[in-house]
Amino acid sequence: MNQQYPSALLEKAVNEFAKLPGIGPRTALRLVLHLLRQDTTAVDNFGSSVIRLKHDVKYCRVCHNISDTELCSICSDPQRDAATICVVENIQDVMAIENTRQYRGLYHVLGGVISPMDGIGPADLEIASLADRVNAGGIREVILALSPTMEGDTTNFYIFRKLASTGVKLSVIARGIAQNDELQYTDEVTLGRSIVNRIIFTGQM
Amino acid sequence: MNQQYPSALLEKAVNEFAKLPGIGPRTALRLVLHLLRQDTTAVDNFGSSVIRLKHDVKYCRVCHNISDTELCSICSDPQRDAATICVVENIQDVMAIENTRQYRGLYHVLGGVISPMDGIGPADLEIASLADRVNAGGIREVILALSPTMEGDTTNFYIFRKLASTGVKLSVIARGIAQNDELQYTDEVTLGRSIVNRIIFTGQM
Repeated sequence: MNQQYPSALLEKAVNEFAKLPGIGPRTALRLVLHLLRQDTTAVDNFGSSVIRLKHDVKYCRVCHNISDTELCSICSDPQRDAATICVVENIQDVMAIENTRQYRGLYHVLGGVISPMDGIGPADLEIASLADRVNAGGIREVILALSPTMEGDTTNFYIFRKLASTGVKLSVIARGIAQNDELQYTDEVTLGRSIVNRIIFTGQM
Repeated sequence: MNQQYPSALLEKAVNEFAKLPGIGPRTALRLVLHLLRQDTTAVDNFGSSVIRLKHDVKYCRVCHNISDTELCSICSDPQRDAATICVVENIQDVMAIENTRQYRGLYHVLGGVISPMDGIGPADLEIASLADRVNAGGIREVILALSPTMEGDTTNFYIFRKLASTGVKLSVIARGIAQNDELQYTDEVTLGRSIVNRIIFTGQM
């Protein structure tokens, strides 16, 4: 669609929205015209919220999670178990695990996984800083919670080799069939693992 | 999803995106984190493009299309046929008709259609200003290009009654089966109209 815009300002705003992932020119136009129908304060709030976020956002100096402060609210919470670190790929994964309310330790956000195809090596990720945290002492367990993909497994293995000599306990989150999944539609790797890694039935799940 | 955000700035930006039509909290988070990965200039451009648009945008004083100037580029183009006005609901419709390259007259953007259910009456639309343009003289034909809905038809009829006494030629865009549509799947109203309003075959379409 080689669109003719009636206004250069409109075209500029639409092009900015169309740069976002999953937003095509038609959707971009619809979103911009929606904003244009809002009052000026609402539009100013929209625009400035993004600018302020980019200018003022911080990343926790310990776990590298997004934060409003030097040390994030999780790392600075005395109620959390500071001897356990859960290693995740990104900020969304921290939020997903926090939502389960099943974890009370700290995190370490790698900022990605090792992916030679995308040119991402160990040095591009927060792996050295993870080793530093473990080497500084006081850590009992490191839980690897990366995606169950080739890249995730590669990263797991790299971290395992890096931390093996420290004597820290290393674990990987369980893989198996998901809640409410149907066995017959589960892929064979997952189903196979769920049998090999079966858990002794105690009447509780 | 009652999400816990690790940063208030992040939460604010996500909430602003989630106000946009068709954007849920998950998509909003994905878009905001995408922006956060861009450099500061790119994010500033994104935010300021929306703010500038809202502050600086104009609407053509003649046709009410969005514009960077008092009189839009279509209304001020001496190459266009100033004796023909095409009445449309909104800015997107102007862009859609311009894209066909089949129309060389001017436009009149109503800003909606009459919809009693939504509390939109004739006074909420640019109908009086359309009558003023026609009454000012020099107009040969007014083409009504509104959506073929109950509201569009109501608006067509209202404008027809308003302009009937002026003696201006009034037309409505053709309704019929769309290019590449299959007859058997076309609704009966459309198919019925396409037979009633059939066009004498001259070897050209």
